[in-house]
Amino acid sequence: MRRSSILLGALAAVASCLSSPAGADEADVIETRQHIMSTLEAQAAIVGQIASGAAPDANLAVHLEIIALTASTALKSFEPKVVGGEARPKVWSDWADFSKRMNDFAQSTRELAKISKEKGKDAAMNKMVDAFSCKQCHQVYREEKKK
Amino acid sequence: MRRSSILLGALAAVASCLSSPAGADEADVIETRQHIMSTLEAQAAIVGQIASGAAPDANLAVHLEIIALTASTALKSFEPKVVGGEARPKVWSDWADFSKRMNDFAQSTRELAKISKEKGKDAAMNKMVDAFSCKQCHQVYREEKKK
Repeated sequence: MRRSSILLGALAAVASCLSSPAGADEADVIETRQHIMSTLEAQAAIVGQIASGAAPDANLAVHLEIIALTASTALKSFEPKVVGGEARPKVWSDWADFSKRMNDFAQSTRELAKISKEKGKDAAMNKMVDAFSCKQCHQVYREEKKK
Repeated sequence: MRRSSILLGALAAVASCLSSPAGADEADVIETRQHIMSTLEAQAAIVGQIASGAAPDANLAVHLEIIALTASTALKSFEPKVVGGEARPKVWSDWADFSKRMNDFAQSTRELAKISKEKGKDAAMNKMVDAFSCKQCHQVYREEKKK
């Protein structure tokens, strides 16, 4: 009883942070990876603002750390073969290439976060082009849908 | 020349990850905090999925770490007094309360991430109700707009 009431309390607390309810199994899988991608997009947007001078530099290393951590969770979210959302079937038919690219992305953003933390903004800028490979991957594996 | 071409390259790389272009000063401030809030919402959604069994547990500690890091950047994004987006003017007129709540949120999610990493999922669940104070704060300081 106590355990289940704690779980219900935890669920209610977390649910208060959300705008959409959870769905069924396959929808859940798609939802998870979309939340991961939207985190990457939001944090990359802030890094873009910092790079262009539209946002202060102060938290650059933190935002890059968030991106690196999020990237580290991304591949797992695509492991269940659930076609849908904006993922092209090619994600699973070309899994070796897709997973290599995602691992490379996780590793390069990890290195970028480290550089930013240890050597500052300018050093991070030098490596940003290589680390942010979003477009190259999206061109092959994403079918963008209008919202 | 080299420095500016590196910056342009970095901007282009980051821009390829985004769906919306940067705007003017005040719009930039609003945009930054909205990206931070949408990161929190996306990651809290995944934690909610994990709590309900709709997503695997494996990365719970990582998602909580992302939330803690993001929370640590949130207050700074509200420091410029720019009314707009979904923030009520009360954010700035009751700044002492708002900033206390935001600092508490950053601290409680930091502790939650630590508990999850060191003691696992069940221990984290016990503390989640206290840590996820989204609703209590949104009720006072957020005017939700339909998308």
